[in-house]
Amino acid sequence: MSTAGLRTRDAILERAVDLASAEGLEGLTIGRLAAEMEMSKSGLFRHFGAKEELQLATVDAAARRFVEGVVAPALEREPGRPRLDALCELYLDHLESQVFAGGCFWGATAHEFDDRPGAVRDAIRDAVAAWLALLTEESRNAGAPDPEQFAFELQALAQGANLRYRLFGEEKAFVLARTAIARRLAAAGSGDRA
Amino acid sequence: MSTAGLRTRDAILERAVDLASAEGLEGLTIGRLAAEMEMSKSGLFRHFGAKEELQLATVDAAARRFVEGVVAPALEREPGRPRLDALCELYLDHLESQVFAGGCFWGATAHEFDDRPGAVRDAIRDAVAAWLALLTEESRNAGAPDPEQFAFELQALAQGANLRYRLFGEEKAFVLARTAIARRLAAAGSGDRA
Repeated sequence: MSTAGLRTRDAILERAVDLASAEGLEGLTIGRLAAEMEMSKSGLFRHFGAKEELQLATVDAAARRFVEGVVAPALEREPGRPRLDALCELYLDHLESQVFAGGCFWGATAHEFDDRPGAVRDAIRDAVAAWLALLTEESRNAGAPDPEQFAFELQALAQGANLRYRLFGEEKAFVLARTAIARRLAAAGSGDRA
Repeated sequence: MSTAGLRTRDAILERAVDLASAEGLEGLTIGRLAAEMEMSKSGLFRHFGAKEELQLATVDAAARRFVEGVVAPALEREPGRPRLDALCELYLDHLESQVFAGGCFWGATAHEFDDRPGAVRDAIRDAVAAWLALLTEESRNAGAPDPEQFAFELQALAQGANLRYRLFGEEKAFVLARTAIARRLAAAGSGDRA
């Protein structure tokens, strides 16, 4: 594909990620996206042959956006407590700043696809599993006594804030999550690597 | 409507709640539900004139199922710590036993409708708000120092277990949530009413 073609493809996928975070991946039809992009349906078909192909490419684009915004900058910090702190801060910032126009892409699509077996569900599951594994590993490096428990709580509290903000528009949702997570981090120990 | 008609309506709504918990409320068309119930579409139209009417009746039926399974039995306990303990236990039991065939109806539909303004979103929001208000009030009665914070954490942890179980099929999701919530409850004080 030409460079221009790749740029167009990226632009389509950026819009697709935002649409899916708001309306779900099932509503993401070629027709809907063509209308949004003011492109012809046949033009979109050239980029994505079928709906599932578009959905999978959208999950992939959302994962890249998440890695660029949260994972990569945190990995620049020292392992252990500095990196865990950075992961939590960047994750909450990412959710609060509504990097995904419709709220967290993963919260929305995981709920949508948890009962729809197939390649799309597997791709969402793999991405969420990779994030939980990273949180668990960095919780362990930061000296949390029960890293898996710790990672579960961090993830649940951040997602709780995301849903509360999306459903009620309450800014304080993120204050509640930050307060809860700060207490967990404070209790997690000195930050020495285990 | 006749007694038989009301019974049929209840049976349709029970199925609708289960379908919506798995596939969402937007996919809950009269045609889909008629096929599930082996009824004619015109028969279903007699009960629910339009899709939004069916969606609102389904939200209402889900709320009744939640009140019967969680709220009403907890309200039989003494106010304060016994009632808060019962609310947490019954809520986790309710999620873990998959009373809603597709996982928590509220987790699924709140994510689905948070970006769809209208009567259905408002009905979901009112139901979730009532639950959070009850959790906050009983946290206060149980002597939690910051009842709103406490209620936020209980809700987020329970919903985190629901999603983790639905997405990964991990039974331990509820062990993680119970462990986290038991620690919060233990820290909440003696159980004296504030």
